[in-house]
Amino acid sequence: MVREHIYKLGEDAQKAARGLAGINSKTKDEALKKMAQALLQKSAEILEANKIDMENGKKNGLSQTKLDRLLLTEERLEDMADGLNTLAALPDSVGEIDNMWKRPNGLEIGRINVPIGVIGIIYEARPNVTVDAAGLCLKSGNAALLRGGSEAFYSNQTLTWIIAHAAETAGIPAGAIQLVETTEREAVDVMLGMNKYLDVLIPRGGAGLIQHVVNNATVPVIETGVGNCHTYVDKDADLEKALNIAVNAKVQRPGVCNAMETLLVHREVVEQFLPELAQRMKQNGVELRGCDETRKIIPEMNLAEEEDWASEYLELILAVKIVDNLQEAIEHIHAYGTKHSEAIITENYTSARQFQKIVDAAVVYVNASTRFTDGFEFGFGAEIGISTQKLHARGPMGPEQLTTYKYLVFGNGQVRE
Amino acid sequence: MVREHIYKLGEDAQKAARGLAGINSKTKDEALKKMAQALLQKSAEILEANKIDMENGKKNGLSQTKLDRLLLTEERLEDMADGLNTLAALPDSVGEIDNMWKRPNGLEIGRINVPIGVIGIIYEARPNVTVDAAGLCLKSGNAALLRGGSEAFYSNQTLTWIIAHAAETAGIPAGAIQLVETTEREAVDVMLGMNKYLDVLIPRGGAGLIQHVVNNATVPVIETGVGNCHTYVDKDADLEKALNIAVNAKVQRPGVCNAMETLLVHREVVEQFLPELAQRMKQNGVELRGCDETRKIIPEMNLAEEEDWASEYLELILAVKIVDNLQEAIEHIHAYGTKHSEAIITENYTSARQFQKIVDAAVVYVNASTRFTDGFEFGFGAEIGISTQKLHARGPMGPEQLTTYKYLVFGNGQVRE
Repeated sequence: MVREHIYKLGEDAQKAARGLAGINSKTKDEALKKMAQALLQKSAEILEANKIDMENGKKNGLSQTKLDRLLLTEERLEDMADGLNTLAALPDSVGEIDNMWKRPNGLEIGRINVPIGVIGIIYEARPNVTVDAAGLCLKSGNAALLRGGSEAFYSNQTLTWIIAHAAETAGIPAGAIQLVETTEREAVDVMLGMNKYLDVLIPRGGAGLIQHVVNNATVPVIETGVGNCHTYVDKDADLEKALNIAVNAKVQRPGVCNAMETLLVHREVVEQFLPELAQRMKQNGVELRGCDETRKIIPEMNLAEEEDWASEYLELILAVKIVDNLQEAIEHIHAYGTKHSEAIITENYTSARQFQKIVDAAVVYVNASTRFTDGFEFGFGAEIGISTQKLHARGPMGPEQLTTYKYLVFGNGQVRE
Repeated sequence: MVREHIYKLGEDAQKAARGLAGINSKTKDEALKKMAQALLQKSAEILEANKIDMENGKKNGLSQTKLDRLLLTEERLEDMADGLNTLAALPDSVGEIDNMWKRPNGLEIGRINVPIGVIGIIYEARPNVTVDAAGLCLKSGNAALLRGGSEAFYSNQTLTWIIAHAAETAGIPAGAIQLVETTEREAVDVMLGMNKYLDVLIPRGGAGLIQHVVNNATVPVIETGVGNCHTYVDKDADLEKALNIAVNAKVQRPGVCNAMETLLVHREVVEQFLPELAQRMKQNGVELRGCDETRKIIPEMNLAEEEDWASEYLELILAVKIVDNLQEAIEHIHAYGTKHSEAIITENYTSARQFQKIVDAAVVYVNASTRFTDGFEFGFGAEIGISTQKLHARGPMGPEQLTTYKYLVFGNGQVRE
């Protein structure tokens, strides 16, 4: 039954996607604005539904962090509406022929940007993902099949009804925004294998969810999120910059994937740099875990074990290691990093260029905090996640990353010899 | 044992890939030319190894078609060498910053084209894939981990030794071109899950192999190859063009994925068009299988069953169906097509544009044979396969499609507020 239900949703989504492919930018942007309006007009209804989820959450003993993620407020609804209006104001990411060329036989071949089709989003407790994901998919001309966490069931259901209805009144085909309205876990597994209707799956949530999707999906997946990010303080670093950047990368928002988890420091500057860093980190409540050698400089540091180098703490803990040179820093990053965001702090031109060239990550920074890896900070207007794989999209995925292309061939009777 | 061996190859490939990322175009192109030379200089050795495979193949009762695919000759080696030299002459597909912008906080963000990393290729009997795939991967700066069919074991082994050695003498890191030298089937399954070292898997071969890889891989896959391609003869078609194109799309090389498998004909022109088409197809030895209505016009046609519409025949058989209008043609294509290559024959501007806009396929043709979907015909110089999925790459995949990007962020001490 679950399977049949979801296949029906998939079929409707595919039909809608084919309709969406022919809809112009103005209609899509109008729809996004109407969706934003509807969220504000119907806020009472949404908050009512959210209250049920919150009460259930408390009954089921959800942690305070999870409850906070689940909670909707007037202010949070306004943020969601702002997000949709921002999307509406962005240029269309589909319909452009970015390249056209002529072959010796006279065939003209153009490559045009088109929507991917139907995007399945599997996510956890935050109900704002329902609105963000639906908005991004619509902006890029895709149908969205959403599967939120069971904790947010009533919130997601009400949000989807409201925005899907608003989109339809603006001329978007029914089926373009759909929620899988069941809390049965089987639903996820059905989606993982629904190659007939889903063109891509994007999991958003903890490492457990993402691994489950990657390991079991036959539908192509864009892997998102896990970030074990490093900052390397080179021997030629401006140590004042290094200090500010390191503190920012660790403490500005420690629970996100682009926060720094390990600091690498060049041996030549470590004695000068580390004491002040330790003090600043202490002021910010950060626990430091260092290699043997760093503990000779800051004895009160805890010892970093092998597993610390591989940890995405997502809290106020920082691993610290001394390296002998740029090469060793890069090797450490390649051994333990997750190809997300990596930074070097240096005034040395050649070291900066080497680091950017060799380090294999979605975003490679010189003299800036890794915290900028984000759709808004990159100027994409929004993001559906941060890809840590190399196929299709890397780093923050905005509307452009939710598109593909097709080739249009203009002939005049050509046949192959 | 097999697992350990392949993981070691993967580790070496990843090291080589990191070296390759820093190597300039000139070195790569020199290596490609040396590989081409080596193939010709050592042709005796290669043909010797191929002889063993051919003898084993005959002993094991391989079909004549398979034996023909397996066979190497001086001429075929020259074709492979030509392919490598063609690649050497192409512009480099990596290293270009295709976009750079500045954020209000002064951060400059550039998007640079980079190699994907390590590409696993799993393929069947044709030994030329060994050379083509290795060349394409090298041109785009990727390490290749090749797993050829057991029938071609000795040919693949000798080819790989020769080209890998030639590449190394030109300055390419060891490990950049490696063959999985075991015929055990377990080898494929190890590769499917080797996310630690493989960035992407590309299967090349029959539908069985491709489905096995898609269904079981956790490494991201680019699906290639299956093509159930249509040609739609519109009511406004130039019937002379339609005839030539249809015959070409079916008979020029029926065993490939971009050959036409179903012909759709508009009701208004079918009586005029079909008799001549049937005659031309008969002259070319093509069996026609038509819908009920077409058989009223050409009674000697066999009846097409439901499964015919979904068949990729790969031989001289053509399904034929009458449709009432453009919309019905598109619906048929969406119901049975594989998103590969689709064509409309029409002189009507609006119908041509509609078809190109709505049909969801990698390549959408107006007034040309679907047989042009091919890396060489598109001007890409070569191809590693034809993608039928929408993520990352669509249609013929040349060196450019074997690249990804990363963001370089140039800061001056920026931290996030």
